Order: sequence, then structure tokens, then C-alpha cells
Amino acid sequence: MARGQGPAAQTGRMSTVADTRFFTRQGPFSGKKLAEVAGGEFIPAGDGSADSREYVGIGPLQSAGLAEVSFLDNRRYASLLDETKAGLVILAPAFAKRVPAHCAAIVSSTPYLAWSRIARVFHPARVARAGVHATAIVGLNSEIDSSCEVGPFVVIGDGVKIGKGTIVSSHTVIGDGVSIGEDCRLGSQVVVSHATLADRVTLFPGAKIGQDGFGFAVGPEGFESVPQLGRVILEHDVEIGANSTIDRGSVQDTVIGAGSRLDNLVQIGHNTRLGKCCIVVSQAGISGSTELGDYVTVAAQAGLIGHIKIGTKARIGAQCGVMSDVEAGADVIGSPAMPFREFFRNVATLRRLSRKPESGGGDAGTEEK
Amino acid sequence: MARGQGPAAQTGRMSTVADTRFFTRQGPFSGKKLAEVAGGEFIPAGDGSADSREYVGIGPLQSAGLAEVSFLDNRRYASLLDETKAGLVILAPAFAKRVPAHCAAIVSSTPYLAWSRIARVFHPARVARAGVHATAIVGLNSEIDSSCEVGPFVVIGDGVKIGKGTIVSSHTVIGDGVSIGEDCRLGSQVVVSHATLADRVTLFPGAKIGQDGFGFAVGPEGFESVPQLGRVILEHDVEIGANSTIDRGSVQDTVIGAGSRLDNLVQIGHNTRLGKCCIVVSQAGISGSTELGDYVTVAAQAGLIGHIKIGTKARIGAQCGVMSDVEAGADVIGSPAMPFREFFRNVATLRRLSRKPESGGGDAGTEEK
Amino acid sequence: MARGQGPAAQTGRMSTVADTRFFTRQGPFSGKKLAEVAGGEFIPAGDGSADSREYVGIGPLQSAGLAEVSFLDNRRYASLLDETKAGLVILAPAFAKRVPAHCAAIVSSTPYLAWSRIARVFHPARVARAGVHATAIVGLNSEIDSSCEVGPFVVIGDGVKIGKGTIVSSHTVIGDGVSIGEDCRLGSQVVVSHATLADRVTLFPGAKIGQDGFGFAVGPEGFESVPQLGRVILEHDVEIGANSTIDRGSVQDTVIGAGSRLDNLVQIGHNTRLGKCCIVVSQAGISGSTELGDYVTVAAQAGLIGHIKIGTKARIGAQCGVMSDVEAGADVIGSPAMPFREFFRNVATLRRLSRKPESGGGDAGTEEK
Repeated sequence: MARGQGPAAQTGRMSTVADTRFFTRQGPFSGKKLAEVAGGEFIPAGDGSADSREYVGIGPLQSAGLAEVSFLDNRRYASLLDETKAGLVILAPAFAKRVPAHCAAIVSSTPYLAWSRIARVFHPARVARAGVHATAIVGLNSEIDSSCEVGPFVVIGDGVKIGKGTIVSSHTVIGDGVSIGEDCRLGSQVVVSHATLADRVTLFPGAKIGQDGFGFAVGPEGFESVPQLGRVILEHDVEIGANSTIDRGSVQDTVIGAGSRLDNLVQIGHNTRLGKCCIVVSQAGISGSTELGDYVTVAAQAGLIGHIKIGTKARIGAQCGVMSDVEAGADVIGSPAMPFREFFRNVATLRRLSRKPESGGGDAGTEEK
Repeated sequence: MARGQGPAAQTGRMSTVADTRFFTRQGPFSGKKLAEVAGGEFIPAGDGSADSREYVGIGPLQSAGLAEVSFLDNRRYASLLDETKAGLVILAPAFAKRVPAHCAAIVSSTPYLAWSRIARVFHPARVARAGVHATAIVGLNSEIDSSCEVGPFVVIGDGVKIGKGTIVSSHTVIGDGVSIGEDCRLGSQVVVSHATLADRVTLFPGAKIGQDGFGFAVGPEGFESVPQLGRVILEHDVEIGANSTIDRGSVQDTVIGAGSRLDNLVQIGHNTRLGKCCIVVSQAGISGSTELGDYVTVAAQAGLIGHIKIGTKARIGAQCGVMSDVEAGADVIGSPAMPFREFFRNVATLRRLSRKPESGGGDAGTEEK
Repeated sequence: MARGQGPAAQTGRMSTVADTRFFTRQGPFSGKKLAEVAGGEFIPAGDGSADSREYVGIGPLQSAGLAEVSFLDNRRYASLLDETKAGLVILAPAFAKRVPAHCAAIVSSTPYLAWSRIARVFHPARVARAGVHATAIVGLNSEIDSSCEVGPFVVIGDGVKIGKGTIVSSHTVIGDGVSIGEDCRLGSQVVVSHATLADRVTLFPGAKIGQDGFGFAVGPEGFESVPQLGRVILEHDVEIGANSTIDRGSVQDTVIGAGSRLDNLVQIGHNTRLGKCCIVVSQAGISGSTELGDYVTVAAQAGLIGHIKIGTKARIGAQCGVMSDVEAGADVIGSPAMPFREFFRNVATLRRLSRKPESGGGDAGTEEK
């Protein structure tokens, strides 16, 4: 009955952000409290009108109302600031003087991070509802902390360990011997086998972790599968996107380094190793036994062949095809991969040469002799 | 026992289409009745033999028998018409005179559509078998129309609404507050959260709709997830392919416009908006906050970066990498995207320049100085 | 309690391969027995020390101990052989003389295959645990051999047949009328409908087989789905990777030939036909009605358009975009596809032409006139 009737609904103007059917909501909070959360500097409204104001939620500059918090992170949206009706705006020091008079501000050198933390205060992440659902199946000798939430139709094998506060959502399958740390979030329809997960690991729905790698030998009567005898190791704070797949190692482990973020539909081959805080965007694939240093970014739909090394902080562009090692800090794109600058120079060269074929590309000139 | 023993099996000659283990079968139907269904013109067989004939199913020109209906849609298969044993053929006016004497015809200016409708009459789509399976779990305050079919091991959250005639197949998960319209078809192992589905929406098996978008800020100790507070809106008649993923918005909604069709393994980022009747072919990906107009086609494995606009009726070729806005009606391909004509001119230029390196590309000529 | 306390744990030095939480372990075995399994020639250790030695497991050259078996398959790792502590090494005849004195050897002309078979002897594949789990749902008139293992929350439709020794893992869905052969392995959360599977077929977790192909006609009010009335035929020994998708045919069948191996996140369109022993690497896609001969390799992220033919033993490179027929035995790469040699010549040409734009690509030279 009362759905959609929370505090936000009572403020008259309200953005469509954080539909109360889907998101919990806390508050209201004062601007000073929010500045504290964000680690930013609180600036009262120029006209003094905001001194006792409290805020009930967040919204974009275009639609937020007086009781809502908005933010400006991107220079090209700066003009929206002049017309916003938001009561509080988070922004970088450079924009502090453009804040309208009715509007309080939180000034931060990292406004996106500040905004993220404030949004989280209004809409906290769901915590585990302790208990194992009556329909879940748990194997022998498994140790599941009593604070965990295990959803309907979950299947947990023998000898599994799951730490405090972890959520395992419906229909997820945890194979024999798997170890999962604290405060992990496993979405629905995940399959995990032959793996260890450290703390605060998130697996989005449909991720498949630990199945056999793609390895076979040519035998007299066709291919023969080579036993895949390694594991998958997901370190602290790793996130794996929806329907992504990570194969276990063949003779060593597949390792995803601490803090790394993998998007949806990503493929990671056997024995592959990612360093700390790598980013792999959707539909990218990394073939077997390739090693990434720390802070490597692999953009969407990029592909890396197997058995190569990618240096720390290298950036692999979208749809890039990487066939050999990439140096630390390098920016590459294209298929085969080359430095960004070279790629775009090639594009320009080819456009130029194609534009006037009649007046002589080099080769055409030769033919006229 | 009686499997495979329906009317079609009794006609002697029978194509392998519509194996009776997998497809229901209705009929037989007269040619006039089928012409009516198809909205085409019925032409009796030249030799008068088909006047009382009835048809039991469909088949390709090569294998259909006298009691079956076939069709010709593609000029390059026209020679098959001369030799077909089919009793009734659907075709465009241009081919009407080539129909063999034993064969009746349905002439239509849209023969593929006509064929589709006739195939559907013989093999109607499955309708909902009203009822919630005993093993399904339904949350509090949910309103599921009594005509719906809810399969085994389905998990439906609190406050969910599902309209008339909708089928929710086994193991599918519907999150709290989700609203689903009438005559929708949700395959097995679908996960839907933070979303509203209009009428006649189809989600194929394994589709994941509404999980968090890929958004994080750089914090002092690694990446911090930015709360994703928007929704996914699937308008009327949308179809989403198997194992595809659609992330919910961060501060606005992810929207798939009415009538759009997404194939398998497609990725749609947060805040992305597709207009009406867009087509996105398998393994294509559209990054966050990009907007597509109506009737846009994105071919297989194409990728679009975030925050760009694609105009109405634009066509993005296979494997295309789109890094900037595309005008309405444009045909682009390549990575980076360029007009089709330019792309193939580039291919030709490069082939020409590479063919005779010894006789002097421009640069080689320079080196000889 | 006794987990991790098997024979390997008692040998002191032990590699991390085949974690006993995840893998069963058999043995120990003598070197001669293993040579027999591998079909290779046994060579005793040069110093005679290995005559009565038995082996408990396998490991890489770097970390294997005296009671473990290792192998050398790749010339560039040959130097590891000199320093290995392994007690037995599998290798090609060319390396037989480099084996350290403490070390026995198995010499084989196919060392990778030999290694695979020996690894399998130590760590045999799991066999079916006969029985249908109490939570599984089985339809009417289904014939499931009593030796099959059917896991928790499996849903099997009406008229399904499953042969001896097949494993159907948790949450998997088998649609009405599906036929599955002997010794198949279906992972968790697989969906199979409108399909027949021969013997020894493996489907990894999340694979979706038999859903509607992507076919629609343009109707007066938008797209209309064309009934998809074919099947999926998976022949003997086919393997399909995690979260891959194979659509059923529209008017003919989608066929995957005997012995073919498809990796994760692969897409196969309707009516597509693969010959015997094809390899399709992860994230590759093959569009509708395309035909592959036998022994075709399609590398990662390659895409093939519909209605083309790929000849026997052709090799399609990674990220290749194939727009037309490919001859038997051809090696192609690039988008659009071209012979390997041509592709890399193009890359070199373009690099050369771009390097010194100031000293005159052909076109620039022309402009100076």
C-alpha cells in the first residue's frame, strides 16, 4: 500500500532516481552531515535559505528539487548548474563560484567519489538477511557463517566455507571445497567451482567461475580433453560482471588480482593472471596464460592472445587485438595493437590516400609510367 | 507412444521441418483459408488438381510434398520452384507465372511475412498454462494474474505485478517491485530486477536484466562502486536474446524502445536508450549513456562507445567500432566507423598499395632518392 | 578433517596442482605403468635412483618434486628441464638426452597427449552417481537410464530420453522431446530444447541450446517473429563452452559436427552447420545458415556473416570478419577477411606510409606539384 509514499514522494518535486519500489532510502540528512560523509567542504547557500534545510535524496541537475542533492562532474554540463533547482550541489573547486544563490554546495577535489558516497548514504547497499533458505541444499562438512544469507534453490557442495555477512542469491551453485570470504555478494544463477574467493568479492548474475579451460590434445580419434587441474583465485574486492566466464587453470591457477573489476560477458582463459585493480570492460576476452600487471585497463571487445605480458598501467583500447607483449604505461589500440597515435595516423593516411585515387597514390603513379 | 504419429507422419512424404516431438501442429487447412491468413491472393493449381487439397504443414521447396506449403523469397532459389513437389507455394507476383501446374499458389507482395503467418497457423506459439507451480516461491503483496504460467523453481520477490497470459519459465528470478505486462514470455534462468516490462516482451533463456551498471570512482584504497539508482524499462514487444545483459541506469533509466529486437550475448550499458524497432545483432555492445533513434540497426559484434547519439535509421555494420555520433540514415562500418563506401575504398587502396611494394609505393620511392 | 591429507600431502615437497579439495586423486603408479598409459617409451633414471620409485601426481617442471611427473612440450621452456626436481618427465625424443640423472623419462612423439593421459590416470573424470535427486522434476513418458545422475532442481520435460552414464547437473532444464545420448555431461544451469545430443556431448554451465533463432519479418505494426521450426543436432563428442548460445534452425537444423569444440560465450545462429572436429574459440560468432567443413578453426572474437561456406581445414584468425566464402585450407584474418600474408603486408605498408608523411606519401607528393 505505502509503496512510493516515502519522504521523497512528499516533497512535491521529485526526480525519478531511486524508484522506491527498488531502492531503500534513508535520511533526511543535513548538508553538513553530507559534507562530512563526502569528505568535502560545506558552503552554505548564498541567500541563507538553506541553513536548516534537510535533504531526502539525490537527482540530476535538470530534475532535482530543493530537497535533493545533485552533482557536477563534467565541464560540458556546467551550464545546467545555472538553472538547477537542486538544494545542494557537489562540485569541484573550479565551479564553486557558479553555484546559484538558493543552493548550498559541497566542494571536493574528487566530486564523483563524494557523490558516490552521498548516494550510498541515502540508499545503502542491502545487507545479508541471516539464514539459509529452507529450499537450499548444503553439503557435508560445510561451514557457513550464521550471518550469511543463502537464498532459495541454492546448491552448496561438500566442504565449502563461507565467511561472515556473505549473500548467496537464489539458484547459485557452489562446488565442493570452494572457499568464500566475508561480505561477498553472489547474484542469482552463478556457478562457482574449483575456486577460492577472498573478502568483498561480487559476482553478478549468471557469472560462471571455475569450469574447465579450453584445452585438448589431438588424439588418434579426435580431440582429447586435457585435465584442467588448477583453480580460480579471486582476491579481495574483485567484481565479475553478469554472464562473464572465468576458466580455472590447467597446471597453475587463474588469478584475478585484488580490486579488479570485470564487466559483463567477459571471458578469461585458463592460467591467466590479472594484477591489482585491473579493469576489463564488457565483451573483452583474455586468452590463456596471459599476465596483466597492476592497473591495466582493457576496453570493451578487446581481445588478447595467450602467453603474453601486459605491463602495469597499460591501456588496451576498445576492439583492440593484442598479439604481443605491451609495455607498462603504453596506450594501444587497433588490430593488431599499436600505439594510439600511430593508429590514428594510419587512419588519416589511409583516408588521404583513398580520397584522390585519380591524382595518384604512389602505386597508381607507378602504373602510369 | 503416439509421438511422431500426427497427421503429417501419415502423408507419406514429409519434410523434417517441425519435428512433432518439439512442435505442436494444427490443420489441415485449405489453400483459400491459408491465403486469407496470409493476406495474399489464392491461385488454384494450373491442372485443377488442387481444388480439394488440404495442407498439413510447411517445408522447403526441395523437400516439401503435395500436402505441404513452401515459399520462395529469394531470387537465387527460383530454380527450385521448377522442380518442387510442394502442393502450395507462397511467392511474390514476379514469380507467379513460374509455378508448376500441380501447384497452387499464394501471391503476396510480402511473401516472407505471408509465410511466417502461415507457419504460425500450423504451429501456433505455446500459450500460458494457467497456474503457479508448487515449487515456485512468490513474495508478499505480489499480484500475478490467474492466467499466468509460473514454472518450477521460479522466485518472485515482493510487490511484483504480472499481467494476463504471461509465462515465467523455470528457475527465473523476478526481483522486488518489478512490473511485467501482459502476454510476456520469460524463458528459463532469466534474472530481472529494478525493471518494468510492458506487454508482449520476450526474454530468452539466461538473459540478465537490471543488475548494477559498471560504475566506480577511484577512492584512496581502490575503486568504490557508485550506487546505480536507475531502472531498466523494456517497452512493448521488445525481445532480448539468450544470455544477453542489460544494466540498469545509474541516475536515469536504461530504455529499450518498443518493438526492438536484441539477439544473443548482447551487452547494453547503463543509461543507454534505444528508440523504437531497433535491431541489435548478437555479440554487439552498446556502452553507457549512448542514445539510439528509431529503426537503428547494429550488426553483429559491433561496439558503440558511451555518451554518443545514433540517428534514426542509421545502420552500423558488423564489427564496427563507433567512437562518435552517427547521422540519421547513415551506413557505417569499420573501426573506427566510417561510411560503407569509404571503408571499402580504403580496403581497395591498401590492397593496391601493398601489392607491388618493389615498384614503389610513394614512401619507397622517396627512399630511393 | 582429512581433507588435504592424501598421499601427496605426505611427500613433503608438493606442487599446488590438483588441490585435493577439488580433485580426486589415484595412485601411486610406477613409471612403467605410466609409460604404458601414455603409449610412450620408459627410460630409467641415469643414476638408477628411480627404479622402485612410485609417483603420486603431476606438476610443472619448476615445482614438481621427486614423486611427481612433469612434462616438456614447448622448446622455449627446455632450460627448465636442467633444473627440475621432478622424478619423471614426459618429453619428445629430441629432448631425451637432456634429462637430468635423477630423473626417469617417458619419451613420446606426442608428449602433450601423453601428459594428458597420465594426468587423467591420477585425476580421473567424475563418473555419474546413479540416481535422480529428490528435488528434480521429470515429465511424463521420459526414459532416463538408471545409471544417470540427475542433480537438484533439474527440470526434465515430457518424452525426454537420456542414455547410460549421463550427468545432468543442478538447475539444468531439458525441454520436451529432447534426446540425449550416453556419457554426456551437462553442467549446471544449462537449457536445452528442440535438440538431440549424441554420445559423450559436454555442455558447460550456462550454455543455452535450442532457443528461437533471430528471425522476423517486417509487418504493418513492427517486426513479426517468424516461427523457428528446426532443431539443434549435436553429434558425438561435441563440447559447448560456458554461457554459449546455439539457436535452433528455422526451416532446417542447426548442426554441430562430431568432435567439435566450442569455447565460452560463442554464438551460433540458426541453420548453421559445422563439420567434424571444428574449433570455435571464445566470443566468436557464426551467423545463420553458414556452413563450415571439417576441421575448421575459428579463433577468438571472429565473426562470420550468414549464408557463406568455409572450406575444410580453413583457419579463421582472431577478430576476423568473414564476409564471403573461404576456400579449404585457407588462413585468413582481418576485417574484412584476407589471407594472413596479405593482412600483415597491409599492416606493414600502412605503417611505412604513415611514418614519414612530410617526406612524401605518394599522395602528398602529388599535392606538391
